[in-house]
Amino acid sequence: MYDVEKIRAEFPILSRQVNGKPLVYLDNGASAQKPRVVIDAITQAYSHEYANVHRGLHYLSNLATDNYERVRGIVARFLGAGSEDEIIFNSGTTEGINMVAYGWAMPRMEAGAEIILSIMEHHANIVPWHFLRERQGVVIKWVDVDANGALDPAKVLDAITPRTKLIAVTHVSNVLGTVVDVKTICAGARAKGVPVLVDGSQAAVHMPVDVQDIGCDFYAVTGHKLYGPSGSGAIYVRKDRMAEMRPFIGGGDMIREVTRDTVTYNDPPMKFEAGTPGIVQTIGLGVALEYMMGLGMDNIAAHERDLRDYARTRLDGLNWISVQGRTPDKAAIFSFTMEGAAHAHDISTILDKKGVAVRAGQHCAGPLMDHMGVNATCRASFGLYNTRAEVDVLIDALELAHELFA
Amino acid sequence: MYDVEKIRAEFPILSRQVNGKPLVYLDNGASAQKPRVVIDAITQAYSHEYANVHRGLHYLSNLATDNYERVRGIVARFLGAGSEDEIIFNSGTTEGINMVAYGWAMPRMEAGAEIILSIMEHHANIVPWHFLRERQGVVIKWVDVDANGALDPAKVLDAITPRTKLIAVTHVSNVLGTVVDVKTICAGARAKGVPVLVDGSQAAVHMPVDVQDIGCDFYAVTGHKLYGPSGSGAIYVRKDRMAEMRPFIGGGDMIREVTRDTVTYNDPPMKFEAGTPGIVQTIGLGVALEYMMGLGMDNIAAHERDLRDYARTRLDGLNWISVQGRTPDKAAIFSFTMEGAAHAHDISTILDKKGVAVRAGQHCAGPLMDHMGVNATCRASFGLYNTRAEVDVLIDALELAHELFA
Repeated sequence: MYDVEKIRAEFPILSRQVNGKPLVYLDNGASAQKPRVVIDAITQAYSHEYANVHRGLHYLSNLATDNYERVRGIVARFLGAGSEDEIIFNSGTTEGINMVAYGWAMPRMEAGAEIILSIMEHHANIVPWHFLRERQGVVIKWVDVDANGALDPAKVLDAITPRTKLIAVTHVSNVLGTVVDVKTICAGARAKGVPVLVDGSQAAVHMPVDVQDIGCDFYAVTGHKLYGPSGSGAIYVRKDRMAEMRPFIGGGDMIREVTRDTVTYNDPPMKFEAGTPGIVQTIGLGVALEYMMGLGMDNIAAHERDLRDYARTRLDGLNWISVQGRTPDKAAIFSFTMEGAAHAHDISTILDKKGVAVRAGQHCAGPLMDHMGVNATCRASFGLYNTRAEVDVLIDALELAHELFA
Repeated sequence: MYDVEKIRAEFPILSRQVNGKPLVYLDNGASAQKPRVVIDAITQAYSHEYANVHRGLHYLSNLATDNYERVRGIVARFLGAGSEDEIIFNSGTTEGINMVAYGWAMPRMEAGAEIILSIMEHHANIVPWHFLRERQGVVIKWVDVDANGALDPAKVLDAITPRTKLIAVTHVSNVLGTVVDVKTICAGARAKGVPVLVDGSQAAVHMPVDVQDIGCDFYAVTGHKLYGPSGSGAIYVRKDRMAEMRPFIGGGDMIREVTRDTVTYNDPPMKFEAGTPGIVQTIGLGVALEYMMGLGMDNIAAHERDLRDYARTRLDGLNWISVQGRTPDKAAIFSFTMEGAAHAHDISTILDKKGVAVRAGQHCAGPLMDHMGVNATCRASFGLYNTRAEVDVLIDALELAHELFA
């Protein structure tokens, strides 16, 4: 039994008011709030169990190392990885994808090599590839979505040529909520020998993920969207791809030996983790993932499906609202524009007065905005603690905004 | 009046026991403990004031953005930068130096270009340059320290040739405690048109830093050593060098516009900060730096000079201990070996039984270890909360270890 009121009570910030109104936090696509267990774990770590990891031999260092390293197994379990050695810690998806771009793609992509992206990628899964285009002549090939925001896996696979070196695609669109059939893409790509990187920033928040079932080569997630600390994250890299990757960030911990003339590297995954890591953030991420798995990823997904269906029905009842992204099985992420409203920013400002936090803008998805022919949208994105009653507050606030702009 | 007992009471972990003994934390060179104000700021941020920064227009996002962005000015003040636009946030010195290596050095260093390093650099200030050696034929030139661990600025400047593109040098050695005269190095290098990167990881913890007075081009610090959160940090990049730097990590926030075919970048320093940053860590870093400045950097330095002199005298009284690094004005960092002890690790294990946390190993300084002809040392590194009484506990524990190994 998924008791959303009990869950809400576990997130301190959800009991606060904003502008004199109860907070209705619908900006989960940008970042999620944190349960008390995560905040308490951070306090506990700094107050009683803190030291640098890996390097000390004293009690606190060993304790911090144990607390930190156990998270690797938690992330592996959360993502269905075959081994915790396939998990590299980082500060989030942006760093994860850049690591693949610099460490795997850069040394093996000549001018003319092709990378296939969907048009609905987040800038984090675009700009690293633009770097390769600018710096070494890599060609980016875009695959469009249809009018409903669906991405046809066959169109992605049809874009493969002998020069294709990588497909990089989101699992769930942060704007449209579209769930991409990454499993079909991975199977087809693998048959043609093309690796696939999946941006799991949004998907892992909303549904069970099994990287082995998906069959991807890289799967990036970001901790702050997963109810964990800011600056935490991880990427799954399948063992054979990890063996192909050269180090990205250089420093302590990722080396075996450094002399004046030589450097030899540590074994993976340590080879890809340089310097003092985000120790306490990673510990907090582990607690957040255990919290989610404790609720049950299927239960979270079911709860959010209910929210999605309810929100869709209510939004569809407003004939002056246009929702982008109409796939039936989408995640509970709703981007929309309002007839008569000058700009999405104006809508969000009015919603904010009613305590409703949504995002307005391009959502770090410039090419998709161009494709949709809009400058900006409002986005209401739901999380595991949201309720139908909050959908009602959103709708009321939108009606107020519409009256003001009409 | 510097009241160290009052200060100690502000660090929750310092009242704990380890192995049944009061914790004597002398591993500050690896990472420092956190005052309650920092821990409370993290709790406050996550419990009441959290959202993603820069991107929202709602109340919490604006509040988090204000809390986050005000830290830029705090770091600028802490380092004596001329403008907060010269401060780039990151996850610590390792990322900062890698940003300079990838963003500034990599595109302008041909095969044969030379980088000058001191032999006592930390791996974080070695491995990124080894990458350039391995990948594009850059030549690393090493400048040795003398028998006391002193680095002669003239030797650094004498190593400059017409092919020299960068000097990268630590301000304070994490092993020897040596304080490097970076101001003289910077003045001489500037006269020859060679930029200087200063690794301030250790120095900024122990003494006032003024990057304009030093005259450096890059100055990197790491938050977790500065009594701030893990995964926080910043780098000062002088405005003219920042203009020369290309982006390192690609993603959201660091762009102005992204289309299928083009990308235009944000203004510095945002150009160098991609994706959702370490929001709460950075807020915590600001609190930590304000805490240090509240105590007064001169006062901290004076307190640590007293500790240094006391520890030096007591260690010099043990004729079976060899301390590496004998410069008179060194920081309170003592690396040592013990006559008769098989390995530094054995010493640290015994100290740990007495509650004394020190580090044993290479301290991420392989070339220095080779230069000194040792495999590993023990290191006791002091911070603003340590006391003479803790020095006595260290000495007692060393005497016990010596008896056991004798």
